[in-house]
Amino acid sequence: MTSLPLLEPAADTAACCPPAAPGIGAAEAQDTAAVFKALADPNRLRLLSIVKGAEGGESCVCDLTEPLDLGQPTVSHHLKILVDAGLLRREKRGTWAYYSLVPGALERTAGLLETL
Amino acid sequence: MTSLPLLEPAADTAACCPPAAPGIGAAEAQDTAAVFKALADPNRLRLLSIVKGAEGGESCVCDLTEPLDLGQPTVSHHLKILVDAGLLRREKRGTWAYYSLVPGALERTAGLLETL
Repeated sequence: MTSLPLLEPAADTAACCPPAAPGIGAAEAQDTAAVFKALADPNRLRLLSIVKGAEGGESCVCDLTEPLDLGQPTVSHHLKILVDAGLLRREKRGTWAYYSLVPGALERTAGLLETL
Repeated sequence: MTSLPLLEPAADTAACCPPAAPGIGAAEAQDTAAVFKALADPNRLRLLSIVKGAEGGESCVCDLTEPLDLGQPTVSHHLKILVDAGLLRREKRGTWAYYSLVPGALERTAGLLETL
């Protein structure tokens, strides 16, 4: 009787296919870390807080320099990082850019911690 | 009739005492940013995730190097940052150190985003 090697259960499955590492995957961790990196700066947290509490839900960049006592190039740099991380939305109207929270962004970021 | 200056409303209160900057304060922003800085690294997020999902709620440092494919000194460095940020607890037993989540730490961190 001939052997049927193709139908035999593979005894060395574990050696062939190591189980995935536990916890969140490397790619997901990379994406999540990028959002927390945007939040890992006190001036950016203060900007988010000011925009969140602004009347009408948006702030002109011209109103954000004084509370933080920073120059406009520095404030614009921090705002760009928050926009790139998907936390703030930027709209140019006339001379000035206006910033508002991306709806649900802070809640989604909080959710990332619960699904770790 | 004499005036009663001490009972008159102070017309120049605003000039005397500028209102506090809007949003969260500088000191609070500094503390919050420090926690997010600990989370702003993919390897640290993966470590948190593995410890969170570990049987018995704790992981030996000896079990954390392989899933991340990092050396033990690097893993210990990341774990120390997570302990210093108040996210992980470290307990030495015999040869090894064991790490567990500080109860409520991830939920409190998520809450920081809601109170910005």
